[in-house]
Amino acid sequence: MPQVGIVMGSDSDMPVMAKAAEMLDKFGIFYEMTIISAHREPDVFFEYAKSAESKGFKVIIAGAGMAAHLPGMCAAIFPMPVIGIPMHTTSLGGKDSLYSIVQMPSGIPVATVAINGGANAGILAAKILATSDPELLDQVKEYAASLKEGVQKKDARLQEVGYKNY
Amino acid sequence: MPQVGIVMGSDSDMPVMAKAAEMLDKFGIFYEMTIISAHREPDVFFEYAKSAESKGFKVIIAGAGMAAHLPGMCAAIFPMPVIGIPMHTTSLGGKDSLYSIVQMPSGIPVATVAINGGANAGILAAKILATSDPELLDQVKEYAASLKEGVQKKDARLQEVGYKNY
Amino acid sequence: MPQVGIVMGSDSDMPVMAKAAEMLDKFGIFYEMTIISAHREPDVFFEYAKSAESKGFKVIIAGAGMAAHLPGMCAAIFPMPVIGIPMHTTSLGGKDSLYSIVQMPSGIPVATVAINGGANAGILAAKILATSDPELLDQVKEYAASLKEGVQKKDARLQEVGYKNY
Amino acid sequence: MPQVGIVMGSDSDMPVMAKAAEMLDKFGIFYEMTIISAHREPDVFFEYAKSAESKGFKVIIAGAGMAAHLPGMCAAIFPMPVIGIPMHTTSLGGKDSLYSIVQMPSGIPVATVAINGGANAGILAAKILATSDPELLDQVKEYAASLKEGVQKKDARLQEVGYKNY
Amino acid sequence: MPQVGIVMGSDSDMPVMAKAAEMLDKFGIFYEMTIISAHREPDVFFEYAKSAESKGFKVIIAGAGMAAHLPGMCAAIFPMPVIGIPMHTTSLGGKDSLYSIVQMPSGIPVATVAINGGANAGILAAKILATSDPELLDQVKEYAASLKEGVQKKDARLQEVGYKNY
Amino acid sequence: MPQVGIVMGSDSDMPVMAKAAEMLDKFGIFYEMTIISAHREPDVFFEYAKSAESKGFKVIIAGAGMAAHLPGMCAAIFPMPVIGIPMHTTSLGGKDSLYSIVQMPSGIPVATVAINGGANAGILAAKILATSDPELLDQVKEYAASLKEGVQKKDARLQEVGYKNY
Amino acid sequence: MPQVGIVMGSDSDMPVMAKAAEMLDKFGIFYEMTIISAHREPDVFFEYAKSAESKGFKVIIAGAGMAAHLPGMCAAIFPMPVIGIPMHTTSLGGKDSLYSIVQMPSGIPVATVAINGGANAGILAAKILATSDPELLDQVKEYAASLKEGVQKKDARLQEVGYKNY
Amino acid sequence: MPQVGIVMGSDSDMPVMAKAAEMLDKFGIFYEMTIISAHREPDVFFEYAKSAESKGFKVIIAGAGMAAHLPGMCAAIFPMPVIGIPMHTTSLGGKDSLYSIVQMPSGIPVATVAINGGANAGILAAKILATSDPELLDQVKEYAASLKEGVQKKDARLQEVGYKNY
Repeated sequence: MPQVGIVMGSDSDMPVMAKAAEMLDKFGIFYEMTIISAHREPDVFFEYAKSAESKGFKVIIAGAGMAAHLPGMCAAIFPMPVIGIPMHTTSLGGKDSLYSIVQMPSGIPVATVAINGGANAGILAAKILATSDPELLDQVKEYAASLKEGVQKKDARLQEVGYKNY
Repeated sequence: MPQVGIVMGSDSDMPVMAKAAEMLDKFGIFYEMTIISAHREPDVFFEYAKSAESKGFKVIIAGAGMAAHLPGMCAAIFPMPVIGIPMHTTSLGGKDSLYSIVQMPSGIPVATVAINGGANAGILAAKILATSDPELLDQVKEYAASLKEGVQKKDARLQEVGYKNY
Repeated sequence: MPQVGIVMGSDSDMPVMAKAAEMLDKFGIFYEMTIISAHREPDVFFEYAKSAESKGFKVIIAGAGMAAHLPGMCAAIFPMPVIGIPMHTTSLGGKDSLYSIVQMPSGIPVATVAINGGANAGILAAKILATSDPELLDQVKEYAASLKEGVQKKDARLQEVGYKNY
Repeated sequence: MPQVGIVMGSDSDMPVMAKAAEMLDKFGIFYEMTIISAHREPDVFFEYAKSAESKGFKVIIAGAGMAAHLPGMCAAIFPMPVIGIPMHTTSLGGKDSLYSIVQMPSGIPVATVAINGGANAGILAAKILATSDPELLDQVKEYAASLKEGVQKKDARLQEVGYKNY
Repeated sequence: MPQVGIVMGSDSDMPVMAKAAEMLDKFGIFYEMTIISAHREPDVFFEYAKSAESKGFKVIIAGAGMAAHLPGMCAAIFPMPVIGIPMHTTSLGGKDSLYSIVQMPSGIPVATVAINGGANAGILAAKILATSDPELLDQVKEYAASLKEGVQKKDARLQEVGYKNY
Repeated sequence: MPQVGIVMGSDSDMPVMAKAAEMLDKFGIFYEMTIISAHREPDVFFEYAKSAESKGFKVIIAGAGMAAHLPGMCAAIFPMPVIGIPMHTTSLGGKDSLYSIVQMPSGIPVATVAINGGANAGILAAKILATSDPELLDQVKEYAASLKEGVQKKDARLQEVGYKNY
Repeated sequence: MPQVGIVMGSDSDMPVMAKAAEMLDKFGIFYEMTIISAHREPDVFFEYAKSAESKGFKVIIAGAGMAAHLPGMCAAIFPMPVIGIPMHTTSLGGKDSLYSIVQMPSGIPVATVAINGGANAGILAAKILATSDPELLDQVKEYAASLKEGVQKKDARLQEVGYKNY
Repeated sequence: MPQVGIVMGSDSDMPVMAKAAEMLDKFGIFYEMTIISAHREPDVFFEYAKSAESKGFKVIIAGAGMAAHLPGMCAAIFPMPVIGIPMHTTSLGGKDSLYSIVQMPSGIPVATVAINGGANAGILAAKILATSDPELLDQVKEYAASLKEGVQKKDARLQEVGYKNY
């Protein structure tokens, strides 16, 4: 049973949303990934958001660009956390997406991550589930340790070869 | 039977939305004004948007602030023009509202007016209805003439008293 | 007799304006497309805007970039709706065009769509004409249905092949 | 035992952070509220973030303004969700705080809410805890119902008295 | 015979435009000040811009706010320099006015000064006329000397009383 | 004897400044073009600005990017008009250059043109000189007529071949 | 002999610059405070900047607003560190001042602090002088300790009275 | 013994940080270059910042992008000057990095240079060290002279070949 719903308004968002999915794969979290447009099929969307709890979702990760309404509308219906990913846009760099997602009015929060922050959305979903899953929490900590190790390797290489040969 | 629906997400938007209503009053256009939040009562909102056509609406004027989803979600459901009014906001001056309303993805336009542009939303609704109503079109032209007259009176006063006494 | 005037300030706007024309073609709406610069030939522009009503125009779609005055000046003269398309710009991403078009002072609205939103301008024109044309309204609804179908096909493919092979 | 840590960098953030606390009070969630500056007392801060898990925290709500590092630094140390509240600022309206909090690099997400979004931070914390607490989930749903009721009362009043007397 | 035309789109711009007039008064330059809206009375505006040269204008100073088209449309018709003053605006701080005035397309420059820069517009007009008027040029230099003197007096007072008593 | 000084802070500005020179060439206006950095050789710059009047300059065209101080510092010293060209920049799109040039404090105007507006700077210089040179004024009008003709040719082609073959 | 020069372009900057002076007073650092405008008295300014080293200055703190050239022009002449303070501005919030100061081209750095960051400029000057003054370094550390203590007192009060009585 | 620490949060910042190193190499200043992430290895970072003084550092140059906390957190711990370099970012052009670095709260300054201003960071470090090192001060002056010479050579070439052949 999927614990996380990943939903995007357009398949052009796939490269960013895929990073969220990869992160959930890494943590062994089950999810369902769907393309649903709140604008182009509002009834399908409503049905999706209403049935999300009964499908077992604990978290929804929603990505959208420009006048990005998908995350906020999910948060209006789904009672548990919705993570919003603002997509980069050609003209405004994603500022339009960011404002449309993060500036939610009082009562309906969306947990917003960085522009194009697909991986961070996946990690945040894991951290949310880890609040009641000690094993997953250990995995999250291991992942954090691997990040540290990654930086240390890069630094070791820098110390070895110097910046001119890096 | 109302031809225009005026809808706002919060009663804090009333001073701006009232200007749209006053303009419709001036043109003798019937309208229905409602407070409905797409975020706080999505089912009520959906019902509203779906039944708008059968209520006789030809145009919806929707105002909202911050992550302003109401106009765009109306446009996703109602098949005729939706006019969006971005509300001024304390922190971002209304840029958040503007981007959330104007930057709609392809397929679902919102006819966006200026930040806090309540009067212009009312006038635009009149201009839309005037495309098939010659009498209303005459009224729109008379209104335009009155705008001209207003500026001319101000200039006449300036020429009379000079800028130091204006 | 054309119902819509499509006007652009420069032929560099053609790729975006063509999308508006294609949309009108799709809906079977007659239109006249013209290149007229309010800045480089103000008298030609004035004549165009003044004669638009007598040519049968119900809507003007005007696109312009940078300090984009064409849509607003059309709206100052033509008594029915003017749809403004802000062009993307290299330095400011189209924010200059957007502000120059959407921030119209009280009395002279321009129905503004997204930056480079050519297709949406065409759809909005159709929606405006559909307020008094039931057949066109049906076409608009069919178009909306096709958008829904398009998303559903993409989702079906995602469900079939998974995100890694999408 | 507190489940949520509320931390702010300066007591000037109190009015906004108090709204988060009030929301947690409403949901009966225990929390610990602290003033700690990552910049002015980095060692105190480090100790705080490191010991947060052992104190029973499942979520940290961190608010900060300008070059707002507190939420991101909490997220670098605490393994469960950190909710960031960007404070409004005089010169940049809170855009500085927002960017400093939401634009976290890959690996270290902060769940960002709106500028000055204290109440939403509290609600988001409740939604996170509700993923493993069915009673709290019911409370969250009741709260959502009360939001709906609030809007409906306002609309009822509007229908009764009209916009001119509202 | 006036050498400068001062024109504003609305009498709300008067406090800023008055500063331009005061500067011209100071330099003894004759001018004509008018309120004309390019949007609300396009035909009056066109007539104004076309007849400006025959009235003896060498420079037009045009101020406007929001989607500020007046300076650019003057520059499209009047063959000598047009100085544009972007008005401060409540929502966007005048960025909308600035972009609408300064970002003119190739061929039609507007000499743009700072947001609300009424005095600078007057000085710039004087500098333009001074290119062919040695006496005026001397006045401009005297004015520059007075600016210097003003700063020196302030500094002298600071040196005398210290910053705590300044 | 040169009537116009063209000065740039770096030879990377040459492509934009060349357009100003080409425009002056077209109008037969003599000019002197120089690379001088106010930041890298302040004494050379001071000497340049101080001697500009005695060299016969009536106008200085100054282009600079980023924290662009060259136009404003010219305007602080040279008593006749200084035209500022803000250069496009990679990170901020030229907004840094624009603000550094247009937002001059009271007393020291810079006649600012669009970002990368080299040609417009040249035309503005011609318009300034044309205030006292009827022949040049005729040339400026002819140039305006050629702009009109250019647009009309493009429109004629559009009418002939249609937008699909344009 | 003063080690620091504090210079501002206008006495309207005094409240912000005074905070820099107060901080230097606190650290017992001698300074000279002056009002000099690079725009209104460029020759006085040049003399100031050239003689700064011989007066014993090791650091210059320069504050300016809008198109803020004073810090950058100081840095072009004075060979030791120049600290720039961007002033808050009504229309653009200080973004114009910030960009004009921080975006210096390669070769001429200005050490920029926050908008209106007068106190921080004073502290930064102290930190610079402390690189070669162990006693001053101790003072800087004591000051840092006092900041910590200040936050701890506030937190202690919060723990004592609770957020509702804070 | 290194006098300067160069630290970056990610090796993607290397091309910019290398320019700082090259500048220090040019001035013969010893430095230590390290990759340390305040987010991914906060304990390593803390250790680094705490031991910096004892390693002999007089200045730290810290570069980071997006929600850039590294410079500010260094400044919270290290008692001498920290120079911050905001990295250019794809979506926001580096405005996120700039605001995260320059807008430090009172008490904890970061000496911020331009977006991607690696070379300027190196020069600023040299200028700071030159406040107590007359030989280095001479080198800084020689470097400034070489900048002047570089511009003069470019101008000489322009005078020789003209702008068309430049």
